[in-house]
Amino acid sequence: MAQVDYPEPVRLLISQLKRLPGIGPKSAERIAVWLLQQGRESTDPLSRVVAVAGETVLECSVCGFFSTAETGCAICESEMRDHAALCIVEQPTDILPLERSGAFRGHYHSLRGKISPLDNVGPEDLRIGELTNRLRAGEFKEVIIALSADVEGEATGNYLAEILREFPDVRVTRLAQGIPAGGGLENADELTLMRALEGRVGVGG
Amino acid sequence: MAQVDYPEPVRLLISQLKRLPGIGPKSAERIAVWLLQQGRESTDPLSRVVAVAGETVLECSVCGFFSTAETGCAICESEMRDHAALCIVEQPTDILPLERSGAFRGHYHSLRGKISPLDNVGPEDLRIGELTNRLRAGEFKEVIIALSADVEGEATGNYLAEILREFPDVRVTRLAQGIPAGGGLENADELTLMRALEGRVGVGG
Repeated sequence: MAQVDYPEPVRLLISQLKRLPGIGPKSAERIAVWLLQQGRESTDPLSRVVAVAGETVLECSVCGFFSTAETGCAICESEMRDHAALCIVEQPTDILPLERSGAFRGHYHSLRGKISPLDNVGPEDLRIGELTNRLRAGEFKEVIIALSADVEGEATGNYLAEILREFPDVRVTRLAQGIPAGGGLENADELTLMRALEGRVGVGG
Repeated sequence: MAQVDYPEPVRLLISQLKRLPGIGPKSAERIAVWLLQQGRESTDPLSRVVAVAGETVLECSVCGFFSTAETGCAICESEMRDHAALCIVEQPTDILPLERSGAFRGHYHSLRGKISPLDNVGPEDLRIGELTNRLRAGEFKEVIIALSADVEGEATGNYLAEILREFPDVRVTRLAQGIPAGGGLENADELTLMRALEGRVGVGG
């Protein structure tokens, strides 16, 4: 007896969903069923926004944030920002959380990833040439390395620190590591505690 | 200073992705970034398969499996199946795993969910009227209840068992519960072990 399978449009839908990051075969099936049970009320808008985003959204050639041909990059085009400070992040999605913190009003530079030999990502895949070009233009006084506190983030930070020696007038800093806000010591892992101790700061008295 | 935000097409993409089951705000952002970095090579086919699936895929009005206007339902239209056995499942995606087991060659009936008061799903939302209509047609000799072994699945199974009393000539069974294949006792939870003990079967001798 012929093996029963999904109709072709369902198979194609599942195979495209499976390609998305973090979506395994089971999740892809679950999402496909949900979409098909919702019907065109859900599939039409999803299809449309995916197509429009693909057609109109660009990576800002300066900072790597999202922009569109119509609106340009909201950060690079702003006149109100601190032009002396540059914050290096892995992804454009790291920018909004930093903005919401309210603690930084300078410019950003998204690397489009971090050095990760296991994923075949080397320095040449990152926007490092664009970074040094921006620094050579000469306006920045401080560069803040704001990468993940994991092995790849550390390695990328060290690599950048080496590259940035070319700019002795630019102060290079990185984000503090330590106990997260609201985090109790009993939940902190050993490495976090070690970093928190190493980075301890004096208290007034 | 105006709050920086993503360009509108990116915001719309993230908001549609967030609606998908199992996709939270963080995953939606991650998927959006991935799609935009891949560019039209990824967004175009995804957009297309979502639209085509929404336009062409139907729920088979008999069994609830996927069908298309063009191809019909692969299961209902098959002449090769056992017309005396009906297996009740929650979702059309439960059908292929059962098919792959090779242990069932009858027909299926997808309920399109299970009774779940917390999700506002009651018996009236399930394809139970369609089920009793099929049984009244009179060909089925056995109905196998193949629902999840969780609280909602059990409740739905009990509800169905009650409904199926209307058909005294139909044998009603449900899937065995017990230790999963390859599972060691040390990994089995108490409820699974209790069910495995309750359902113990004699061994020859």
